[in-house]
Order: sequence, then C-alpha cells, then structure tokens
Amino acid sequence: MGSLDTNPAAFSVFGDEAAGGFQPLNAEDVRSYLHKAVDFISDYYKSLESLPVLPDVKPGYLQNELQAAPPTSSAPFDVAMKELRASVVPGMTHWASPNFFAFFPSTNSAAAIAGDLIASAMNTVGFTWQANPAATEMEVLALDWLAQLLRLPASLMNRTAAGRGTGGGVILGTTSEAMLVTLVAARDAALRRSGSEGVAGLPRLAVYAADQTHSTFFKACRLAGFDPANIRSIPTGPETDYALDPAKLLEVMEADVAAGLVPTYICATVGTTSSNAVDPVGAIADAAALFNAWVHVDAAYAGSACICPEFRHHLAGVERVDSISMSPHKWLLTCLDCTCLWVRDTHRLTDSLETNPEYLKNDASDSGAVTDLKDMQVGVGRRFRGLKLWMVMRTYGAAKLQEHIRSDVAMAKMFEENVRSDDRFEVVVPRNFALVCFRIKPHGGMTEEDADEANHELMERLNRTGKAYLAHTVVGGKFVLRFAVGSSLQEERHVRSAWELIKKTTAEIMQD
Amino acid sequence: MGSLDTNPAAFSVFGDEAAGGFQPLNAEDVRSYLHKAVDFISDYYKSLESLPVLPDVKPGYLQNELQAAPPTSSAPFDVAMKELRASVVPGMTHWASPNFFAFFPSTNSAAAIAGDLIASAMNTVGFTWQANPAATEMEVLALDWLAQLLRLPASLMNRTAAGRGTGGGVILGTTSEAMLVTLVAARDAALRRSGSEGVAGLPRLAVYAADQTHSTFFKACRLAGFDPANIRSIPTGPETDYALDPAKLLEVMEADVAAGLVPTYICATVGTTSSNAVDPVGAIADAAALFNAWVHVDAAYAGSACICPEFRHHLAGVERVDSISMSPHKWLLTCLDCTCLWVRDTHRLTDSLETNPEYLKNDASDSGAVTDLKDMQVGVGRRFRGLKLWMVMRTYGAAKLQEHIRSDVAMAKMFEENVRSDDRFEVVVPRNFALVCFRIKPHGGMTEEDADEANHELMERLNRTGKAYLAHTVVGGKFVLRFAVGSSLQEERHVRSAWELIKKTTAEIMQD
Repeated sequence: MGSLDTNPAAFSVFGDEAAGGFQPLNAEDVRSYLHKAVDFISDYYKSLESLPVLPDVKPGYLQNELQAAPPTSSAPFDVAMKELRASVVPGMTHWASPNFFAFFPSTNSAAAIAGDLIASAMNTVGFTWQANPAATEMEVLALDWLAQLLRLPASLMNRTAAGRGTGGGVILGTTSEAMLVTLVAARDAALRRSGSEGVAGLPRLAVYAADQTHSTFFKACRLAGFDPANIRSIPTGPETDYALDPAKLLEVMEADVAAGLVPTYICATVGTTSSNAVDPVGAIADAAALFNAWVHVDAAYAGSACICPEFRHHLAGVERVDSISMSPHKWLLTCLDCTCLWVRDTHRLTDSLETNPEYLKNDASDSGAVTDLKDMQVGVGRRFRGLKLWMVMRTYGAAKLQEHIRSDVAMAKMFEENVRSDDRFEVVVPRNFALVCFRIKPHGGMTEEDADEANHELMERLNRTGKAYLAHTVVGGKFVLRFAVGSSLQEERHVRSAWELIKKTTAEIMQD
Repeated sequence: MGSLDTNPAAFSVFGDEAAGGFQPLNAEDVRSYLHKAVDFISDYYKSLESLPVLPDVKPGYLQNELQAAPPTSSAPFDVAMKELRASVVPGMTHWASPNFFAFFPSTNSAAAIAGDLIASAMNTVGFTWQANPAATEMEVLALDWLAQLLRLPASLMNRTAAGRGTGGGVILGTTSEAMLVTLVAARDAALRRSGSEGVAGLPRLAVYAADQTHSTFFKACRLAGFDPANIRSIPTGPETDYALDPAKLLEVMEADVAAGLVPTYICATVGTTSSNAVDPVGAIADAAALFNAWVHVDAAYAGSACICPEFRHHLAGVERVDSISMSPHKWLLTCLDCTCLWVRDTHRLTDSLETNPEYLKNDASDSGAVTDLKDMQVGVGRRFRGLKLWMVMRTYGAAKLQEHIRSDVAMAKMFEENVRSDDRFEVVVPRNFALVCFRIKPHGGMTEEDADEANHELMERLNRTGKAYLAHTVVGGKFVLRFAVGSSLQEERHVRSAWELIKKTTAEIMQD
C-alpha cells in the first residue's frame, strides 16, 4: 500500500525499545521539547520588533518549501523546530509584533500562556461536571470574577452571595458561537411562544442589528436558520456616530409586527469592529422588552475596557439584557481562544442545547446541583480554558489589568492628538477606546475620490514597509485607516515611530 | 465604586515602574512563568499514576476553597501555581492518568504540547490568508498530510500533484462544528434545489443517522434549524453489530420522499461512541446518491486508526461521500482542540459560510488564489491549530503514529482476551479498535436485571477506588461497561492492573 506503511507483521507490540515502545509523553521528551519551545518563544519575542509585520510571500509559498508528503520515519524534534524557524516564521503575519496596529490586537501575557500550556498538558475534556469538577468550577469561578470586574448584575452570575440563581456563564471559542447559541435559544423560545409546530413558524421570526454589527452576526443568523429576508441590518449614520438608533429599531420592529413577523433577537454592539461605535444598551433593551425579544450585547473588544470605572457607562442598562459576551483574547491579555458568555437564564440556553446520552449520565448531573458546560455550547468536547483566564486575574489583579487598558487608551489618545495636530489628516469618528479611525482629508484641491485613493495608497505603502500593519474600513462611504493600539509588546515609542512613518509616507504620496 | 477600583486619577500613563509600566510579556516573566509551568507539568505527569483518577469532591468545592472575588492587586505567579496545586489538581478528573479508561482517551504527545505552546505565544488569528499566510498554509499542509496518511481520495485534498481542485479542509474545534457547518451547507443547497423562497422549504428537509450516532449530531441538526420531526434516528440492532443498515436507511428515505420530504443529509459514523460500531460508508453513499443527499462521515475517534492499512477498510467508499471529519485530539496524540474536516467541494461550504466585511478585504482574497479559512467555520477568530498537528506528524512520522495505534489496539485485545477467558464476563459487541464493551453476564441464577445492577455496582465501586475510571453505555437494552484503552501514559501494566481490580471487585460484589 505504498511507502507510508510500516509493516504490521514486523511490528512488535510491547516494544523493541528498551523503555517499552513508543512513549509520546516520555518525561525526558516532554521537558526537552517544552524547553526548546520556551527558548524559541523567548527568541521570537526578542526578534519581533525587527521582523516585517506583514510577510512578503506568495500564495502556496509554504507548500513549496516543505515536503508535500508526511514523513514515514520519526525525526528529532529539532527538525520541526528548524523548519518552523526557516519556513513558517518568515511567512507569518506577526500579531504579537509591537508594530501591529491592524484589526484588534490579540493581547497576551506570561500568565495566560503558562495557563494555556498547563491546560494543553492536562488535556482534560470537561463536558460534564463529573468529567472534570475542577475544570468546570474553575471556569464558573473565572466567569464570576470577570463579571465582578465588569460590575455585571448578579443576575448574570453563576454564584452570588445569595447562592445560585438562574444566571451563569460559559467560555466559548468565539463571539460567533456566543451569538449562535443565544440566537438558537431565542429562536426556540419564540417558536414555542408563537405555538409553531416544529419549525413551521421560522419564516416569521425576525432579528435585528445595526449595519455596523460584525458580519459574523448576520452569518450566525443564517446558520441558525433565520430567513435571510428577515435579518434586518438597520442603517446608522454620523448623527449617532454610527451607533444603533433605538427609535429606528423600534420603527422597524413595529413595521415587522404589522406585517405579521415576530421580533426575536437584537444584537447590540459595544465597540464595533469598524469604528468602535457603542450601541445604547439600555434603550435597546427597553425597545426589545415591548416585543419580548432577546437582547444580546456583543462587547468582544471593548468589554475589556469596562473593567475601568471610567468606561463602565458604556454597559449601562446591561441589567436588562438577556446575554452579553466579551473576549478576553482580544483585550484582556488572555491568549486565544477565550470568549465569555453570560446569560440571565441558563435554562433558556440548555433547553435548546442539552443532550443526555447514556454514556454521559452520572449522579451529579442527575442531581441538578451542577453545571454541565456542554449544554451551553455547540460542541461536547472543550479545552480547560478557565485556567488561563483565572491565572490572568489571579496574577495581575484588577489594578494591573486596569493599568493595561488605560495605558493602551493613553497611547491611542496620544496618536489621536498627533493626527488632530496635523492639518493633512482628520479623525473620522470620536475615539472611544484604543482605536483611532483617521484619514488623509481632502486638501489642496483633492476630491473625495483623490482622498480615498491617497488613503488606500498610504495603507498599502505602510504595510509594504514591514514596519507597521494597519487595516482599513469604510465609514460613511469614506475609505478610513484603522490604527488599533494594544499589541502586548507595544510601547509608546512604537506608536511614535508609526506616526513618524505615516507622516513621512504621506508626504511622499503627496509629492508623487 | 468599591474596592476593586484603582484610582484613575493616580494612574501614571507611562509608568511609575522603571521599565516603563506594566509589561504583560516581559521577557523575564515569560521565561520564568513558562519554566514553572514546565516543572509543574513534569511533576504532574510523574504523580498522575498515584492520584485518584476521579476526584472525591462535592459540587461547589472549588468556590469554597478559592476567594470569591477577584484580587485587586497583583500577586507573584507562584500564588496561582500554589492554588493550582492545592485546590485545582485535587478536584480534577485526570484524563491524562494511565488509569483512565472512560469515554475515549484524549491522547497527547510532547510534540503536540510544544506546538500548542508556540501557537499560544504567537497568538495569531489567521481568519484570512493575508491575516496569516503561514498559519493558513500550515493548516492546509497538515490536512493534506493527514489525508495522505488516511489515504483519502485526492478529491478531498487542498493540493494534489494535479494542482488545486475543489476539495479541501479546515481544522475546527469539535466534531459538532464539523457537523453543523456541513449540515448548513447541505441545507442551503437543498433549499436552493427545491426552489424554496428563503427558508420556507425548511420544514420539508429531512436528515438521517443511526440511533447509535453521537447525540451531538441530533443537536447540530436542531441548531441548523431542521424540524425535530424530520430528524430520523434509524434503529440498529445486534444483527449489524449496531451499525446502520443501508436497506433500512433507503426504506426510511423512500417513505419520506413519498410523504413529500427531501432527504438532505446522512451522517455515517466510523467508530460510534457507545460501542465502536462502523456504519458501511460506501453503501450509505450509494443510497444517498439516489436522492442527492449529502453524506458526512464522522470518524472522530476511529479515523485515527485508519492510518494503519489493516484498519483502512473501515473507510471504504469514502471517495463517494461529501465530507469526513476526524479528531486528532482523540486518538492521534494532538492535544485539544483539533478536529479535521475535509469536504469534496469547498464552494458548497463557503457559499453558506462566507463573509466579506470591508475591514477584511485584501488583494489576496480578491484574487481567489487563496483559502480564507474563516469561510469554512462558524466563527472568524481561530487559533494556529495547524502547527501542533504538523509537529506531531513531522516528529513522529507515519511509523511511530501507526505503532501508537497498534500498541493501543494490542492492549485492548489483551484485555478482551482476559474478559473472554473468564466465565463471569462477556464481550458484548465485537471489538473493532481499542474499546472493549463488556459486562458481568447473568450467571448462577442471576436475572438480566440482576446483571445490570451488578455491572452498575461494579462501575461505581471501580471508580470510587480512584485506581481506574470506566464509563458505561447501554447496548441492546443492557448496561455495559466501556473499557477504552489509550491514554498516552498508559502501559500494559496499567491494563493488567485494571483487569485484576475488575476481577477482585466482581468477586466482592458476587459475595455481597
């Protein structure tokens, strides 16, 4: 059957090797491989500043560098490490680079990486409480801690001074999953309420979000089977800084009800991806309450800032929503993946997501006294994600985490002031957190089209230097550059250098 | 605002600390925390054999041991490590224990943990090719390597000698996600084919699987909006060793078509969770072809065995299916989470899952020459999961991986022979891989109920010893013990000890 096969006839079950055959977790290998990995990481972080943020490689480059077929024989771990250094690193977009200003940063910390490493080694699968009591309870505890840092209402917590209520949380992989599971719960509840036989009533359910909402929301709605014709993207404009206008939302919902539809779910965003707009959570909850619609708050990025009292007002009204999610893997120093979802009534989730196969039955689950986290997510299997999140909070404490947020915001503010002080540029929307949306503004006879072209050219040239990576968006029909501060190795000098580079490159473009 | 707040007024932006404020990736901390984590892991693996596999803790135990509120101030990393050792470890179900025989093992290796560690430190988010060319191409390459190890048809691969075809793969978190995304693709294709306006035709679509199929399949169908009344669980029995009978499947599909329904999706399992039954993939594909229904193969556990030629026949017919998924995090030495999905036509996935927000637009994506992996999954964000899987194959090669599978199967075979040689026990279904389903059989005047009770008691007593952890299932109405060999620290002596413990405990039960 080809060269990949070893010969089963020649295979000796309990080992030619003195130590008793192949030992994938041999103590010496574990230590040696992990120490090599730590050395690599240390070197990698040191070299990051000098590496191009965005690589100059063509599609298919890696397949051309590495062998196309898997090896038959084993090789020293050094071989994989060598190929990693020689072929993988040069083709990477370095999200950990201090010169990374694109998208939102994926912030990280020594405590998070260590926690994640231990989780990988323990490799437990805590689908039920019994399958891992400590992992389940650590996750529940970490979520309750974070809820306290965010001053979420007790109704969203697993355990409060008053004991266990109906609220609770779960750590998922992505915001999209948080949206999907709450959409499904809201969908099923609406179908039940409307007396639908099976999913016959599905074509009548409608869902709502501002047009600035992350595209993954609209995708999650389609995944959950909502009719594309009933997925409402409500226009926003500069008059609300691109936040959802509750009056418009109400209008659209009323028109839908008049047309026989059932408003089922509204997604409010605190800190949109495009420009960090903040939808008014409380007013949206009030409008939704008129129709018994589920309100979810997506605070993936900006939720982290709300651990600082001076930003907490962006969540005002959260005590009246049904669910909220935020991702510590974005801005709370916890490596991927880690999205926290809290819901006011966990039964509304588990009603839709519970499974109960024979081989998972156990006394603890039967007692109802425990949380089986598999019933609050898409899958069954799950990493021990609570550990890294808990380690981050345990080690840094509220003080350092707040310092981290404030430092990023201060650097963004500094950058914003630089932009404002230069007549060639404009800040396009007010800066709420650590994202600055700016552009070369039409000046010296430039049209709007010229400006769009100049901004596009500016981004391309900056990114080609390898010394900075910025992404763009379109706000109000204008091509806008997004400068997102916060990569965890970033210091003030990196922001200053990027600004110098932007000024220099802009001058060059203006000359051309 | 309470004790959690640090005072923003007193906050100095660019640091009181000489080094320039809080540095979450400070080089010294990274090295020191990771070395502490490696030491912990090393100690943990060494002590595992003596730790109870299943802990003796009560619901809420951890909340009672650790502080209920997040700390305000930072603490040395040692504090978190100390609480981990003192409070978390004693409450864990140790999946890595050599005495773990429950569920399916989550196998692991030094290479995988090191790869995962590096991924955590790089912390990249390769949603598009441009957002990380190397991570995207490494994932594509790892999937093509594994496809070759499994002898999957070239039509399922990303790149073959003939260039890029329509097939391809993606690494997801769980089998459930693989099922969900393919269900949605099949659903949308069926709606388009039937000329449905929006989702109006959804109540007519039907999906199929054997009653032994993992419960997560039936849940995924509900998530995707299929009508619960049209989710068919087809009965199986001992005459097929609990595998799906294609004749029965055909019968059910024909009856559905006669009733105006549209057969849309069939899930075939290679290695069911309950008893490792193997659905006949080729015959199912033939039946499905009559109705243009999507066939997905769930080979989550047993797929790994198919890298050995002597097990490959279980995938016979896979060249005629639409998609297949398997999870290296189960039996291919790759820590959680890592589920590989291959599809014959990636466009059928991306038609349903593509998003194209402005801030992700880039020349590479526009060219169509690259794979943007976000369009083959639920979410947008994604860990660099390809690295660990590639490192496992690169380091161990086909030979060691096959040795690993064969060693587990040989140990299971040894256990099976032990069971067969003892008149008090029976093997309930033929052993296909490394799972032995066995029970105390009714003997000496025992009724079937007595036997069920004795087996339940046997499991409870075994698990209470802390020296072994087994799960159960119900097959053909009988309570059956599942003995799953393969935890990565397991050696022959652990299997022998478990068997001795089973015999001794059974004797005690028989005496009582």
